[in-house]
Amino acid sequence: MTVRVGVIGVGMIGQDHIRRITGVLTGGTVVAVNDVDQARAEQVAAGLPHATVHAGAGDLIADSDVDAVLVASWGAAHEEQVVAAIKAGKPVFCEKPLAPASDACLRIIDAELVSGRRWVQVGFMRRYDASYLAMKAAVDDGSIGAPVLMHCAHRNPSVPPYGFSTEMIVSDSAVHEMDLVRWLFGEEIVAVRTLTPRRTGKAAEGVQDPLIIVFELASGVLADDEVFVNAGYGYDVRGEVVGESGTVALADAGGITLSAGGRRTAVPAGQTRGDRVPADWRERFSAAYDAELQDWLNAVAAGTFTGPSSWDGYAAAAVTDSALRALRTGRRVTVPLPARPDFYAKTQ
Amino acid sequence: MTVRVGVIGVGMIGQDHIRRITGVLTGGTVVAVNDVDQARAEQVAAGLPHATVHAGAGDLIADSDVDAVLVASWGAAHEEQVVAAIKAGKPVFCEKPLAPASDACLRIIDAELVSGRRWVQVGFMRRYDASYLAMKAAVDDGSIGAPVLMHCAHRNPSVPPYGFSTEMIVSDSAVHEMDLVRWLFGEEIVAVRTLTPRRTGKAAEGVQDPLIIVFELASGVLADDEVFVNAGYGYDVRGEVVGESGTVALADAGGITLSAGGRRTAVPAGQTRGDRVPADWRERFSAAYDAELQDWLNAVAAGTFTGPSSWDGYAAAAVTDSALRALRTGRRVTVPLPARPDFYAKTQ
Amino acid sequence: MTVRVGVIGVGMIGQDHIRRITGVLTGGTVVAVNDVDQARAEQVAAGLPHATVHAGAGDLIADSDVDAVLVASWGAAHEEQVVAAIKAGKPVFCEKPLAPASDACLRIIDAELVSGRRWVQVGFMRRYDASYLAMKAAVDDGSIGAPVLMHCAHRNPSVPPYGFSTEMIVSDSAVHEMDLVRWLFGEEIVAVRTLTPRRTGKAAEGVQDPLIIVFELASGVLADDEVFVNAGYGYDVRGEVVGESGTVALADAGGITLSAGGRRTAVPAGQTRGDRVPADWRERFSAAYDAELQDWLNAVAAGTFTGPSSWDGYAAAAVTDSALRALRTGRRVTVPLPARPDFYAKTQ
Amino acid sequence: MTVRVGVIGVGMIGQDHIRRITGVLTGGTVVAVNDVDQARAEQVAAGLPHATVHAGAGDLIADSDVDAVLVASWGAAHEEQVVAAIKAGKPVFCEKPLAPASDACLRIIDAELVSGRRWVQVGFMRRYDASYLAMKAAVDDGSIGAPVLMHCAHRNPSVPPYGFSTEMIVSDSAVHEMDLVRWLFGEEIVAVRTLTPRRTGKAAEGVQDPLIIVFELASGVLADDEVFVNAGYGYDVRGEVVGESGTVALADAGGITLSAGGRRTAVPAGQTRGDRVPADWRERFSAAYDAELQDWLNAVAAGTFTGPSSWDGYAAAAVTDSALRALRTGRRVTVPLPARPDFYAKTQ
Repeated sequence: MTVRVGVIGVGMIGQDHIRRITGVLTGGTVVAVNDVDQARAEQVAAGLPHATVHAGAGDLIADSDVDAVLVASWGAAHEEQVVAAIKAGKPVFCEKPLAPASDACLRIIDAELVSGRRWVQVGFMRRYDASYLAMKAAVDDGSIGAPVLMHCAHRNPSVPPYGFSTEMIVSDSAVHEMDLVRWLFGEEIVAVRTLTPRRTGKAAEGVQDPLIIVFELASGVLADDEVFVNAGYGYDVRGEVVGESGTVALADAGGITLSAGGRRTAVPAGQTRGDRVPADWRERFSAAYDAELQDWLNAVAAGTFTGPSSWDGYAAAAVTDSALRALRTGRRVTVPLPARPDFYAKTQ
Repeated sequence: MTVRVGVIGVGMIGQDHIRRITGVLTGGTVVAVNDVDQARAEQVAAGLPHATVHAGAGDLIADSDVDAVLVASWGAAHEEQVVAAIKAGKPVFCEKPLAPASDACLRIIDAELVSGRRWVQVGFMRRYDASYLAMKAAVDDGSIGAPVLMHCAHRNPSVPPYGFSTEMIVSDSAVHEMDLVRWLFGEEIVAVRTLTPRRTGKAAEGVQDPLIIVFELASGVLADDEVFVNAGYGYDVRGEVVGESGTVALADAGGITLSAGGRRTAVPAGQTRGDRVPADWRERFSAAYDAELQDWLNAVAAGTFTGPSSWDGYAAAAVTDSALRALRTGRRVTVPLPARPDFYAKTQ
Repeated sequence: MTVRVGVIGVGMIGQDHIRRITGVLTGGTVVAVNDVDQARAEQVAAGLPHATVHAGAGDLIADSDVDAVLVASWGAAHEEQVVAAIKAGKPVFCEKPLAPASDACLRIIDAELVSGRRWVQVGFMRRYDASYLAMKAAVDDGSIGAPVLMHCAHRNPSVPPYGFSTEMIVSDSAVHEMDLVRWLFGEEIVAVRTLTPRRTGKAAEGVQDPLIIVFELASGVLADDEVFVNAGYGYDVRGEVVGESGTVALADAGGITLSAGGRRTAVPAGQTRGDRVPADWRERFSAAYDAELQDWLNAVAAGTFTGPSSWDGYAAAAVTDSALRALRTGRRVTVPLPARPDFYAKTQ
Repeated sequence: MTVRVGVIGVGMIGQDHIRRITGVLTGGTVVAVNDVDQARAEQVAAGLPHATVHAGAGDLIADSDVDAVLVASWGAAHEEQVVAAIKAGKPVFCEKPLAPASDACLRIIDAELVSGRRWVQVGFMRRYDASYLAMKAAVDDGSIGAPVLMHCAHRNPSVPPYGFSTEMIVSDSAVHEMDLVRWLFGEEIVAVRTLTPRRTGKAAEGVQDPLIIVFELASGVLADDEVFVNAGYGYDVRGEVVGESGTVALADAGGITLSAGGRRTAVPAGQTRGDRVPADWRERFSAAYDAELQDWLNAVAAGTFTGPSSWDGYAAAAVTDSALRALRTGRRVTVPLPARPDFYAKTQ
């Protein structure tokens, strides 16, 4: 079965997902597109063999040629589009965040509960990264004993000088670690602290960059997360889980070792220019994005879902809210999370 | 365009290529299979949506539903099948070796020359490995200056106790480095020496394992190649090019670093069991095999060929012959290579 | 000039310093020993060419053959012995802690201020470790831009089941990072938080292990310190300073790389048994201990002092007090540090 | 006992050994110096507390205040000086080479045999390097099974444009690996091949740089040695022993990891400027030189010798002769080595 996908939102990320479905992955084809910028939608469709352009997201969702929907529009539009897909009985892949506010996420959950089954996969692609998967395997198989704490670092070389606020460091960057630690340890984040190190002079005025966010999990495991979006030197994601008898850490990517000019430099493979730390998340997580979307296509074809759920999208939104409150108050904030519906138990 | 592929030979490697075309890559479908073991061919076809089973390789090649042919039969059958595909005007992907003897390779080249265009890609998948590509980029962009020598090591944990002779260490294992150094440096191997270190007690009786083969390239670059097929501890492929101003080496694969039990161990990602050197070539070169075959599907669809050619297959066979003569004589042996037809120039 | 050293306290650490002066370093000789256990003192002296045994620490300090005093007695005795040495006008090397309580440290400072010059070096040996020195050089020379935060981890394989309390994790282990971050950044710690991750089941009953202590420096730099004294797998000290344009991290020690049994393992050199993370601080910091004491012997001979001072000992004690208060209260605690007397300015 | 050392030859290396004995090591003092350049000898002596300047090497050896002799003169003078020390019954540390020609080495051996005991230690300092010691331990304890082959690389950034001939690449550089492999495997080199890769344009006219020398040991183990004295990028010594069940390789030196400017660079500790491969052998083997000479001082004091002997010096000279013949002839050359006198058995 070839899954016929309709894509809502064909900006940079939407186009990248279209490229994947069309030129990298197997089992999917893009049959419809929609964008708030109609001209852009037309342009993208022109590069595809047989894609209809829909004036509205609702039209695309209703299109009987569309088996499944990929939502890559801006966050504020997610709720309406995802709920519409659920009501239409169509599987939907939604880029993170599921919705900017946690109550919007809850409404998506409600719609799914009413429908009686899962329809939504959220774009937390780190769960598909080979290194994180190996880390989780080491945690799960007892290689390091019971986990007691974790260290994370999430560094971007820079962000645009305007429009990337302190809040976005939490909601757009740290949100990846929020989902990651929940997935790694299989439990919820119950409280959060947000610490403010010395501010880098490279950040825009008024932006507190970096942050150290400390996640407290239900079992007492603490995970500290350095989030630094103007780290300058490259895109660098690091992590180490410390357990009762050992630790497991992300290693540097393989590739080649260049010895020249008095330096010995590790150069990850698969980059356009060699001697450097990955330039951005596209380079670092390229294979994870592929695996994520292939997994979704396979799940749609099979009618089952194992990827990040609406609940995962909601939990991340709730932790984001609490981390922002912790930033404002300087205190430990408990995350007001209701019990997870059995519906979202892992083995669905 | 979806390329309709016919597969000749559906043993382990043939089945693996079918899995790739069917479940991993885009742009191809398997429409026909053939095998000397008809029952095996039937069984493999049963797992595919619409695949015809042909009693003879010739029937498969002649099938008008077959756009392109993938040859994964045993080496002795390659010549006849590849030549037939060329005569039928069908692109052919041929697993290495192109043919066991260099004169058979020459006959394939002749057939291609007569046909007036290239039809053949040989399965030297290392050219598609991200680390080797990064290494070649570093050589080509002057990062290490003009190359002067290279060190290679090619280690398998073990080979079957029967049937893997000293000759096969050269023809089946070292053949990868023969192609690799030709590709890396863009020049031919003109002479070869084969040295015999202390023999491991783990090799079958009468088998000289390991070998050190020294390739001499046209420019004078020497490449020494340790080939050790009973190295015991894992599958380990290493390489370092030394240039006038620096060196470039394959790095260990990334993944995770496990600290436990008093050890700090590098664990490549993407493995079923973690704490080890890759167990075999499937693990190490999995992505390269994918890239190689995707490149071929793309080339077939586009009608152009950039992968390893018949000439590359022939050159490797000629060097193999010389390396075996060097092994018998204990001397430096020059490789009797005719001038390369312009037909096989790079920018075709 | 050969410095004639009197050693007070000849337990494990005292004997190790004697071994260094006698058999490793140049420019020093041990001429007198004292211990609360007179028999042990006699035994140690018997192994030295010409060492007098003194019944009391005061007698040793007063001995006119003693040029300088090394204090390796238990912490509670330090104040009296160090002050006596200052009053006698003899340079004194004092193992950390300078004194268990910060007010005792202040009294040592007072005695030194009265004497009109510096006499004391405190045993913070990490300042002499080659890796930390390289890290400090990278911080100081602008390689990573202005520092914004630091991550530390300090892991021991285990501590004795009895007698190693939560308080000692702060006062005996974390004290090294307290001094380290003050030295690295050249500024005081002004506030501290102590966080309590999930407790390991390997700790003695009632002991909270591990801790995460967050040091806040005068400039706003935050340094988080994981202190884990029952980490099980080995002795592992790690650190990374993050600056505005890069980071600098301690690397694993060099040595050899062992590929065997399906594993590739980094093995630091200079260990009695190979394949492991350093077993304890003796292995990891052996060269730093040598350098520290050689530096002191040289300083005594030259009459100048550049090593860790009484003020450094006092500051560490004050931060320890605050970290313990932070542990009890769960809050950020400011460190009540008076202004540093000019007397302890760096370039004395 | 303090060993009173007389130093013959106070050029760069001689002065460096004097610095070690005087300011780094314990148990030795320099009481006499001699040099063909009398003024230089006077100048060096002026920097020492009580050192006599002798007009002739013989006078220094005869000086009753001299317990032991360190020979750091030029190679052509070694034979006479070392033999004189043996005849005077004084232990002698001789920088490598023991003598430039193997027959001169044999005359030293004869003098020692006549004297009835060992007096000579040759300056092969790599035996004292922590990484090589860890490598030897891994070979000896069976971690990698029986050794079958070894790869060495010995790279200098550059050599002076005049006066460093192809012969010196063998006699001054490769001589270290000649001794190293004999020591690592505990057996003699029985044959040697010298291969000539593409010549670097950075070498002086007429100099063949790099070389690949292949040592064949008595057991059949082959050790290939890339010697490249104009490698440009730094001083880099590498080695990997391959055994029947695993391999052991020199690791990069520890230190720090610097992430800046889009690069992640390994920086060995203990260097004046950070971001580079060691600049020369002084940096790389500094600790080995210290350990070597401390071992000699200890051995002199104890009256026993365990370091590299005259036989080791002779064997290296004999292999050097054969490697040069192999270079001229292009053939495998057997090393004409007589049986080792029992006198030089290891456990003396």
